[in-house]
Amino acid sequence: MLESEISIQERLYPDSTCFGCGRANPDGLQLRSYARPEGVIASFQPGPAHSNGMGSMNGGIIATLLDCHSGAVVLLDAAGDADSLTDLWVTAGLEIRYRLPTFLDMPVELHAEITEKSESSILVKATLRYDGKVRVQAESRWAPIPKR
Amino acid sequence: MLESEISIQERLYPDSTCFGCGRANPDGLQLRSYARPEGVIASFQPGPAHSNGMGSMNGGIIATLLDCHSGAVVLLDAAGDADSLTDLWVTAGLEIRYRLPTFLDMPVELHAEITEKSESSILVKATLRYDGKVRVQAESRWAPIPKR
Repeated sequence: MLESEISIQERLYPDSTCFGCGRANPDGLQLRSYARPEGVIASFQPGPAHSNGMGSMNGGIIATLLDCHSGAVVLLDAAGDADSLTDLWVTAGLEIRYRLPTFLDMPVELHAEITEKSESSILVKATLRYDGKVRVQAESRWAPIPKR
Repeated sequence: MLESEISIQERLYPDSTCFGCGRANPDGLQLRSYARPEGVIASFQPGPAHSNGMGSMNGGIIATLLDCHSGAVVLLDAAGDADSLTDLWVTAGLEIRYRLPTFLDMPVELHAEITEKSESSILVKATLRYDGKVRVQAESRWAPIPKR
């Protein structure tokens, strides 16, 4: 993606303080996700703080990226053509399979897409690739926050 | 626990730079876990950086805490009576159920214990409580890192 392209997060929730993807959280990961014909994609360069202490990426940081990236897919779908959100959804369940280690020297590539959808539940499948290989797979279930 | 009590992390991997529980990661969560007769426990006070942007705790930070806390259980078991580690284990799978929101104003309490164990796999169940209620449940599967 071009550095100047506006991410899903910047378009729909630019003031968010979310640890994983909030533009307004200076201490967070500031993930930026982009819609493409084949699904939603993102790239993230981990830093030394994101280690697991054994030379590869911390599993919780990976979970954060996959969770927030999947959230971008869900909220993009909820927004439709609008430039702001009226319906909010949260993670109800997250299943992660760590297949291979992910090292810290290159960006990781994320992909996610909706696989099932009803009024009360959305399922998202996501992957994390490093050096061309799928290293981690995630499936998440999302639930709407009841309107006040 | 007393502030002066030595945690599992301080005893077994005091120089770790892990994002979730490394004592040597100044930008990490620095989780400290303690062995008790009823399982391994920890307490963690989230900061404003750990928000999900909607007033409660980020799901990825919760995943990080549950993963690292479960890791402390596995590595404590692997160490036995030793004060250092010869066998390392990593997360192979992590399933999280987010049942209720967790807010940021009070510490959360973690509990974890081994539920199944073989030479090639360890299963750990963990919970996160906030304000006396179990808010999040996790089950993780751990695999040994082959010795070089």
